[in-house]
Amino acid sequence: MTAYETRTSNPPALRFERLAQQDEARAGILHTRRGPIETPVFMPVGTAGTVKGIRFEELERELDAKIILGNTYHLWLRPGIETIRACGGLHRFIGWERAMLTDSGGFQVWSLGALRKITEEGTEFRSHVDGSLQFLSPEVSMEVQAALGAEIVMVFDECAPGEATHEVAQKSMELTARWARRSRSAFDQLQAARADTGYVEATGLSGAQALFGIIQGASHSDLRRTSLEGTVEIGFDGYAIGGLSVGEEKSVMFEVIEEVAPLMPSEQPRYLMGVGTPEDLVEAVARGIDMFDCVLPTRNGRTGQAFTSRGKVNIKNSQWARATLPLDENCGCSVCQKHSRAYLRHLYLAGEMLASMLITHHNLAFFLDTMRGVRQSIRSGGFPKFRREFTERLNTSGE
Amino acid sequence: MTAYETRTSNPPALRFERLAQQDEARAGILHTRRGPIETPVFMPVGTAGTVKGIRFEELERELDAKIILGNTYHLWLRPGIETIRACGGLHRFIGWERAMLTDSGGFQVWSLGALRKITEEGTEFRSHVDGSLQFLSPEVSMEVQAALGAEIVMVFDECAPGEATHEVAQKSMELTARWARRSRSAFDQLQAARADTGYVEATGLSGAQALFGIIQGASHSDLRRTSLEGTVEIGFDGYAIGGLSVGEEKSVMFEVIEEVAPLMPSEQPRYLMGVGTPEDLVEAVARGIDMFDCVLPTRNGRTGQAFTSRGKVNIKNSQWARATLPLDENCGCSVCQKHSRAYLRHLYLAGEMLASMLITHHNLAFFLDTMRGVRQSIRSGGFPKFRREFTERLNTSGE
Repeated sequence: MTAYETRTSNPPALRFERLAQQDEARAGILHTRRGPIETPVFMPVGTAGTVKGIRFEELERELDAKIILGNTYHLWLRPGIETIRACGGLHRFIGWERAMLTDSGGFQVWSLGALRKITEEGTEFRSHVDGSLQFLSPEVSMEVQAALGAEIVMVFDECAPGEATHEVAQKSMELTARWARRSRSAFDQLQAARADTGYVEATGLSGAQALFGIIQGASHSDLRRTSLEGTVEIGFDGYAIGGLSVGEEKSVMFEVIEEVAPLMPSEQPRYLMGVGTPEDLVEAVARGIDMFDCVLPTRNGRTGQAFTSRGKVNIKNSQWARATLPLDENCGCSVCQKHSRAYLRHLYLAGEMLASMLITHHNLAFFLDTMRGVRQSIRSGGFPKFRREFTERLNTSGE
Repeated sequence: MTAYETRTSNPPALRFERLAQQDEARAGILHTRRGPIETPVFMPVGTAGTVKGIRFEELERELDAKIILGNTYHLWLRPGIETIRACGGLHRFIGWERAMLTDSGGFQVWSLGALRKITEEGTEFRSHVDGSLQFLSPEVSMEVQAALGAEIVMVFDECAPGEATHEVAQKSMELTARWARRSRSAFDQLQAARADTGYVEATGLSGAQALFGIIQGASHSDLRRTSLEGTVEIGFDGYAIGGLSVGEEKSVMFEVIEEVAPLMPSEQPRYLMGVGTPEDLVEAVARGIDMFDCVLPTRNGRTGQAFTSRGKVNIKNSQWARATLPLDENCGCSVCQKHSRAYLRHLYLAGEMLASMLITHHNLAFFLDTMRGVRQSIRSGGFPKFRREFTERLNTSGE
């Protein structure tokens, strides 16, 4: 009996079906209780119960996002789980009926820096909402995530900075390992107690939530391996690489992925947390990653930066003052079909909300379309060509 | 030959067709070069080339707004008419193919208060964008409005405060009258010179822009009558009542409308500028008004105030913290079909843009639906009943 078999129920909460593989790049289907999701997949970030600047109707109907991410930390502090429970769980509360993944709060609490205090038990910190003292632990995170009711729950982890020394990274990774066991145990009890607000009858699946483990260890390959082995030994429905894109060099990030991904269970989804630019996604897929989330399309949408097939476009640039061309001539999204760079620049300079809405929309369309292209190319056997052409075109620059 | 006949081309730029009348309330069709518009009609305000917080797709497809308003003052200062001309006029620049009306800038410059200096020639003021000294006159306003290319152009007027003395109001009204003649003359020259960027071939209409006169005179009925007579003598495609909803008592506003509207040409559209709440609209329709614009649905949408069939709802109110009911149970809009007050309150308190987007959407839906109900009731002969029930329901209060 393998570690995985000891831990997953029969039927499982989640099932990964591999359809094609080209070198390390994988195309597959993630079967969730809210329907199938083709992989590799990009998950738009919906931190506080909204993917910033876009309505769910557009995310669903036009952009066809299949899964979005929510944040335990933010939703726990505001509006709080009692409100979300009273409103029937996160799906109902926000009006999104497709799949969701919730981050555990570990990364957000880590981002608070000096404002937090980490002990064996958990993390004490001050709320960014009202300054109150709060305590987050594996058990609390699992309870909050059951109340949110997402399809995929993440273990509560401790994140070391990318450039952490071996000693610091080792301590952090070992703490994450102990927290992973506590997360697994609390999660299983909550599922048994039916605390999950998102329960859905699903053919071939248990209808319960799925739990992902997180591999830490900063840039130290021996620690990453130890973390991977320990996490797989506990047994999860999927595995994530955490602690990347947190200040380390990009080359370090890809070295870690190259080292870790091929060792991750091949029959389960591999999730690279918080990464990255469109080129990062394509390069990580080439190294065996199936799932991504990143705030870049939405955050940069609000600061006037568009991602296009020919590189980034800064809409503030005066060269677009009278430019009638769209953000991306190769993009079929409703923004590129209708609006010019001149208009978007005007909206941005006038401080109009619509600037953020439209650039965010395009950016999400570009990320999701890129992943669609990636999936098709792997399934048709043309991923190396896709990767080469995509990269070449990006470097022809939009400006 | 009447004044009107001397001034309108054959065929006219605009044609008002009265379909039904009940007491003073009128239902009709405003035939414009961009299609027919059923009246009474509410025009969402798109000050700087965007109806704040909503995409044009939604305004058109879901809310079915037939005409929106743009502002000469804002668009002239930013992005400037050279940019808008280079992008093919305002319709093309912003991506709205339906009808538009542009305000002349008179009211906006008036709102600058101490920052402006009024002479016979025009108004000198400092730009709110960059502090530069600017000069707006009837001729400049007409030139800008030709470059914008809206279906309906407003004369450049001077607005006196609602509580202005007779002397102040008279001087202001007389200046407006002289500016109206200059506006008419400059407008006609610009049309002859084909300066209008929005020219559209239209069956039965000239395809040119239409020009509306504005009746001023504050709360003084003799001045309002003089202004009306002088304006009609010049001859316009439609007539507006300006200078209301600028600080006077609501009873004063309705007295002026009651006095002026029945004297306005009955075969041309009557536009009440900058008014008002949903009940104001219904009451003004009952006094013979056909067209409205107001920032309330969009502005209040951004400050968390919703208009509903049972009165205003302040979404910040703690009583909505776990309320699963929608903003308005009688509303069929996509926001009320999907989202709870609890969710909207959460978004608002979290400072999320989506709060503004969703409440703005509902508010516009409510205003436009109210006008739809008004039109249907006049045409079916049930307007008095509609008016009574609408008012009674409003006062049952949403909170």
